[in-house]
Amino acid sequence: MIGADAAGMSAAHQAVRTARAQGVDVRVTVLEATRVTSYSACGIPYWIAGDVDSGDDLVARSAEQHREAGIDLRLGATATGLDRDRRVVTYRSGGRELEEGYDRLVIATGAHAIEPDWALDPDTGRLWPNAGPVKTLADGAQWLDRLRDNGPRVVIVGGGYIGIEMAEAAIRRGREVTLITRGRVMSTLDPELSDRIEAALTGSSVRVVTGRTVTQVTGADGRVTALHTDDGNEHPCDLVVVALGVSPSTGFAVAAGVEAGESGGLRPDPEGRVADDIWAAGDCCESRHRLTGEWVYLPLGTHANKLGRAVGSNIVRPGLLRFEGALGTAITRYVVPGTHLEISRTGLSTREAQEAGIEVRSLLTDGTTASGYLAEAEPIAINVIARTDDRRLLGAQIVGGAGSGKRIDAFATALWHGATIDDFAWSDLSYAPPFATAWEVTQVAARRLAERL
Amino acid sequence: MIGADAAGMSAAHQAVRTARAQGVDVRVTVLEATRVTSYSACGIPYWIAGDVDSGDDLVARSAEQHREAGIDLRLGATATGLDRDRRVVTYRSGGRELEEGYDRLVIATGAHAIEPDWALDPDTGRLWPNAGPVKTLADGAQWLDRLRDNGPRVVIVGGGYIGIEMAEAAIRRGREVTLITRGRVMSTLDPELSDRIEAALTGSSVRVVTGRTVTQVTGADGRVTALHTDDGNEHPCDLVVVALGVSPSTGFAVAAGVEAGESGGLRPDPEGRVADDIWAAGDCCESRHRLTGEWVYLPLGTHANKLGRAVGSNIVRPGLLRFEGALGTAITRYVVPGTHLEISRTGLSTREAQEAGIEVRSLLTDGTTASGYLAEAEPIAINVIARTDDRRLLGAQIVGGAGSGKRIDAFATALWHGATIDDFAWSDLSYAPPFATAWEVTQVAARRLAERL
Repeated sequence: MIGADAAGMSAAHQAVRTARAQGVDVRVTVLEATRVTSYSACGIPYWIAGDVDSGDDLVARSAEQHREAGIDLRLGATATGLDRDRRVVTYRSGGRELEEGYDRLVIATGAHAIEPDWALDPDTGRLWPNAGPVKTLADGAQWLDRLRDNGPRVVIVGGGYIGIEMAEAAIRRGREVTLITRGRVMSTLDPELSDRIEAALTGSSVRVVTGRTVTQVTGADGRVTALHTDDGNEHPCDLVVVALGVSPSTGFAVAAGVEAGESGGLRPDPEGRVADDIWAAGDCCESRHRLTGEWVYLPLGTHANKLGRAVGSNIVRPGLLRFEGALGTAITRYVVPGTHLEISRTGLSTREAQEAGIEVRSLLTDGTTASGYLAEAEPIAINVIARTDDRRLLGAQIVGGAGSGKRIDAFATALWHGATIDDFAWSDLSYAPPFATAWEVTQVAARRLAERL
Repeated sequence: MIGADAAGMSAAHQAVRTARAQGVDVRVTVLEATRVTSYSACGIPYWIAGDVDSGDDLVARSAEQHREAGIDLRLGATATGLDRDRRVVTYRSGGRELEEGYDRLVIATGAHAIEPDWALDPDTGRLWPNAGPVKTLADGAQWLDRLRDNGPRVVIVGGGYIGIEMAEAAIRRGREVTLITRGRVMSTLDPELSDRIEAALTGSSVRVVTGRTVTQVTGADGRVTALHTDDGNEHPCDLVVVALGVSPSTGFAVAAGVEAGESGGLRPDPEGRVADDIWAAGDCCESRHRLTGEWVYLPLGTHANKLGRAVGSNIVRPGLLRFEGALGTAITRYVVPGTHLEISRTGLSTREAQEAGIEVRSLLTDGTTASGYLAEAEPIAINVIARTDDRRLLGAQIVGGAGSGKRIDAFATALWHGATIDDFAWSDLSYAPPFATAWEVTQVAARRLAERL
């Protein structure tokens, strides 16, 4: 295995378990370039916000725990080459070049944060010290230092999940926040929902700049002091969060001739195979979209864990487990004093459906998460998207108060099974006054669209 | 329509809407024995607990609002006879016997609380004044008076949904609560989960007596002062909650030859028809269980609303909407100072499956509702039940802290579509640290069972 985070270590442990269950001998070796394993990258914004005491808390399993399970884990071991004919990986460790042979190779090299040119100090070619992404544990530690040592003006570039989560962290730490995004806020949702999220950000004092790109920066004394956007405006900053997404770390594999997709991600089959005796999982991979059959790049821990586990079984005994595609389900929140907003989505957005050539209709429904006569009732807005031809559900998006976000899972389950909006509207979901309205609001949303199709 | 609560008024409004959409003339007359319409019976325990200011808040739509929609609503009109040949309903109103003809009749007469003999004062033949059920708005108002005027000892007889909800109400109002149930607490869940719920009740000072039946009472001065159970114990009381369930109010229909099931409930087809030109919906009906095809009595507002709506369409234009069965999905909570427990279930319990002759295996999994390093992480226990032959999911039950209960909806959606536990374990549900673990706990529960099947 190359890479000791979610995908690689899921594969490693599952291989050990499967071998034991199948009565097969395996020797699992994992090469990891850094010194940390199996950490929750998704937890880093909450560590920065102050909800988590230490980066160690984000580590699900330490190197010692992995080794106790019988895995030969080599930290500080950077893979540098792959000889597929000889079945050998070359790696650098402690200044030496070493080789490791394999019968089966698992590539789980993950992804790296996208760093645009303006984020780099031209004098050093490295990130400005007061600017950086939020991807690794080292990034998290650096952000804690940066917040301690710098002024109050935080500019976040990027309006996706990490952008929103870092806006929460910065507001909760009392900073003045500007969020700049080239499109809408949370643009994987339909525009009406982006508007709701933008309103919540603005309402809690975030300055939101949409439809703008950073063109250049002003630097002074080895620090970035202002960002300039393509409308000619200048945004003074003490700190800059680079939240422009990640890119698959597959140079090593591609150099050895393993095929990659448009995103640069590898394209594993449902068992995780990318080439003869080579398997892959995690953020270095694209996923098959279950609704369109197209390859999509969805670097999420959920897929890393699942495909990693499937790979771990299948390298021991092919055919045991399958990863049957992704729906693009995702959730986040924006919670600061006075505001509690949950945001989730699954399936295709209207734009994604149109790009896939599917004729759709969508409808936004406002309701409440509980019966209106109880204090538990929070506003919830649900956008449902369906095919006009066969009435099948294609996607759903939710923005609302406490108790809203996880409602997306019922939609995701319906999508997984090819449900129509009528199926969803008339199925038997749970109701009691503190939890729902008598017609559960997600079903009202589906029913209202059904009535208009 | 006979009956102006959830089912009847859903049917009435939907008939008016459908007629307008279809360009058909309808005249909708509703006979209602009481003076109230469309109220949330499920909200009454929360009114008693003090969460709702007034019984009026539980009324979704008033008589005036119904009449504004063009419905001829007659309050205080008790149906007394049905002549199917002449298509005439006889009813009593203001001391007079009246008749109303119909082209199509909708029976939505609901259900009444079960009142055992011991709950009645033998001198009057009526409920002891300090004992009663929790079913109607009048019951709710009476409970507020009873709590104001009586001592602290509340004995609840019945360990189902209303029993638990009244335990919450009474504890939150500072009473001393004894809960007596002939079986387990929440016996529609598997025993391990009943145990968890019982522990939460006991831990918050409810005295729980399981496996015991009330055999007789001690009465004095026209009040019940103690209940006696079949173990010879005596339970002194100032107030007694009779929470033994409800029974369909179908005497009127059955006397006219409409067929009823074992529970006494009518048996509508998927469009809501129970006989030529007669339709029915709501708590006076049984439902088809979607998994077994058997008739079951599930008196819930969700089914009343859905089948009522379908009936309203279909009496105008048959075939428009169908109610495709119930899964037995339900949710409640037990929330008192220091305890927050959410309880939900869907599908079949292990016992129900065995009674249906299905070979099953179940497994209880403990986990957390959010990533363990965040304060949002609450304990959650999930019991998953699957067929051993084809691995299909048969049921799920959840007991846990805040954020647990509504997770049942993803299971219910999977059940609706005949999912296997493998489908459920490997589907694409949402994850972010404040909302879930990287392997969503409901999917871990399904996966663990899948590994053992």
